[in-house]
Amino acid sequence: MRRTPFLPALLLAATAFAQPDPSSKPAISNLMNAEYPRVHADGRVTFRLAAPNAAKVQLAGAVTAQPVDMAKGGDGAWMVTIPPPAPGFHYYWFLVDGLQVNDPSSDTYFGWTRPTTGIELPLAGEDFYFPKPVPHGQVRMHWYLSKTTGEWRRAMVYTPPGYDANPRTRYPVLYLQHGAGEDETGWTKQGRANFIIDNLLAEKKAVPLIVVMDKGYAYRPGERPPQPGSRPAPRQPGVLAASTFETVIIEDLIPSIDQTFRTLTGRDQRAMAGLSMGSMQTLQITLRNLDKFSWIGLFSGATVNGDLDSAYNGVLKDAAAFNKRVHLLWTGAGTAEARLMDALKTSDELLTKRGIRHVNFVSEGTAHEWHSWRRHLNDFVPRLFK
Amino acid sequence: MRRTPFLPALLLAATAFAQPDPSSKPAISNLMNAEYPRVHADGRVTFRLAAPNAAKVQLAGAVTAQPVDMAKGGDGAWMVTIPPPAPGFHYYWFLVDGLQVNDPSSDTYFGWTRPTTGIELPLAGEDFYFPKPVPHGQVRMHWYLSKTTGEWRRAMVYTPPGYDANPRTRYPVLYLQHGAGEDETGWTKQGRANFIIDNLLAEKKAVPLIVVMDKGYAYRPGERPPQPGSRPAPRQPGVLAASTFETVIIEDLIPSIDQTFRTLTGRDQRAMAGLSMGSMQTLQITLRNLDKFSWIGLFSGATVNGDLDSAYNGVLKDAAAFNKRVHLLWTGAGTAEARLMDALKTSDELLTKRGIRHVNFVSEGTAHEWHSWRRHLNDFVPRLFK
Repeated sequence: MRRTPFLPALLLAATAFAQPDPSSKPAISNLMNAEYPRVHADGRVTFRLAAPNAAKVQLAGAVTAQPVDMAKGGDGAWMVTIPPPAPGFHYYWFLVDGLQVNDPSSDTYFGWTRPTTGIELPLAGEDFYFPKPVPHGQVRMHWYLSKTTGEWRRAMVYTPPGYDANPRTRYPVLYLQHGAGEDETGWTKQGRANFIIDNLLAEKKAVPLIVVMDKGYAYRPGERPPQPGSRPAPRQPGVLAASTFETVIIEDLIPSIDQTFRTLTGRDQRAMAGLSMGSMQTLQITLRNLDKFSWIGLFSGATVNGDLDSAYNGVLKDAAAFNKRVHLLWTGAGTAEARLMDALKTSDELLTKRGIRHVNFVSEGTAHEWHSWRRHLNDFVPRLFK
Repeated sequence: MRRTPFLPALLLAATAFAQPDPSSKPAISNLMNAEYPRVHADGRVTFRLAAPNAAKVQLAGAVTAQPVDMAKGGDGAWMVTIPPPAPGFHYYWFLVDGLQVNDPSSDTYFGWTRPTTGIELPLAGEDFYFPKPVPHGQVRMHWYLSKTTGEWRRAMVYTPPGYDANPRTRYPVLYLQHGAGEDETGWTKQGRANFIIDNLLAEKKAVPLIVVMDKGYAYRPGERPPQPGSRPAPRQPGVLAASTFETVIIEDLIPSIDQTFRTLTGRDQRAMAGLSMGSMQTLQITLRNLDKFSWIGLFSGATVNGDLDSAYNGVLKDAAAFNKRVHLLWTGAGTAEARLMDALKTSDELLTKRGIRHVNFVSEGTAHEWHSWRRHLNDFVPRLFK
């Protein structure tokens, strides 16, 4: 047996510091062959940033309730190990002497109005959003000229497996929106919507469909975009209001999609869903355009409230009529987003009391984050167009 | 006329500092409504980063030959105005007390092995790479299982306008590669290849084609990826060698593309081109697989050199045979990349002396950057498949 040579304690400590825990592995979302962040067997995560001249470095974002101080090692790199975060995808960043900095070792995702680092922490046994050896649909960048904004806009469009091979088949369409500060790439990059639907289709749990993901921000010429980091002003409960984005969807996007893709164009074959800000947009746009939409998904955000005799222009007043007109009203949240869980409960009780048919979905252990919305999509899509 | 009220000189100076030059405008690549970086009428560019606790902040990257110090204003933001950079797209970043940090106000692009800030500085009157009111092709994410690497890989695939509307038409294919540290998104995001080709097709300058853009890195199970920031070891001039990426292209990617898309599958209808590292891969892969490729584009990198009687396995020895077999050998560089211009001249002279038909293209005023390669593509594509 080989003996460990004598080493001074200080050198041993430095060596131990520089060597990663052998039971830990690089996170699957790391760039190229980056060694950090590393995930330990018990779910703890170690982050590292080489910033030898910094006076203070913290880890911040959705992996920690409050910014947590990192410790500087002899090699000038700052490290911290945190308790196991919730499963799924989390945005995070470093605060280097107060400056928000992305982790150069991990990939970025458009969130918080800019490319922001994320980490993927799968829950053992939960693989519905990973690519599997099944037929894969395509995600297509579709450019269209918006008369409303005067600009070329880009939407991401999922076409199901077999779309090209069956040039006479037409498909129903789901319009699917991201949250505040995100963009049209969110549902496929953070959300993995394409893999979720590929897997549902392979298991014959869903009807083949087209999914259209646009950017939920739109401004007429001269209209001023919000400042970075700002959130839209909350609407009055139960008030339906026009928006530039609605005009883009109704007058520019839907016609462009129906012209370019082999869609089924009736209201019975068109759904809309969104998360957080996107759920507010979904509730507004679908209830104002029930001639165009009949399947509605509200992921972690909009709920139904107020006096339904007058709220929402009265479209929810007559339950029987609404139940006939709207094939699916789906609402959901994650157990780790307490305020939204409360709102969901109130909404569920109100809808139940009024006899309005709806689905009430709860994602166990997940917060106001993409992993909730992956699960929402995975429950929502199998209910569509049936 | 309203009079300017008296202000102490110091306050005036601070006000002047905080107010952007009214003749300057936010760069077109800025995120959302970010005010900086700003481009002045004379082409100078002002960069800004709010980092009140930093001791030293520099601007670095391809907008400046050497890192340039920024000055801290009273508001804690660091600013610098630089002389007009070369036209086109440039990667850049800040050095905050030595730490490389992206500009949170500008978009990022996968380069230097990670998402890296870029800025777009158009040259007045040059608009061939902008979206115009013409029919647009789609850029599709295509997933395929690589037997070579054992992983799902993603390629970006441009399909020309009319692809879906003409389900019996088949198209020739260009395989198009990025440079070192970049990935499959480079040619459409930094390169704007889709808009360049849309515009060429609208002007009837090119044959409708499919373009396949894969990631130029591939590792067999157990093979070790290079360290971030490292570059591939230079090959011996004139030596053709196998690579894992070649195996992926030949055995996995081409069959998957030919199975999924309506391609023309003969060697006369298949091209390959690449920039920098991608041009080395192109030269290697095409010359080793002349049964599969007959159109070759070398953008700012690989050139032909050595003793052609023996180099490249002798495939360039017999000029007449090569000229018959290879329909296009295209080489190019930008005038601001001096070393490559020298290599291009040597290669041009050698090919001319040996009677090997080729195109020698020079991009005026551009460096080893994407704007050279946009121009290269714009010259290369109209020559294909004719």
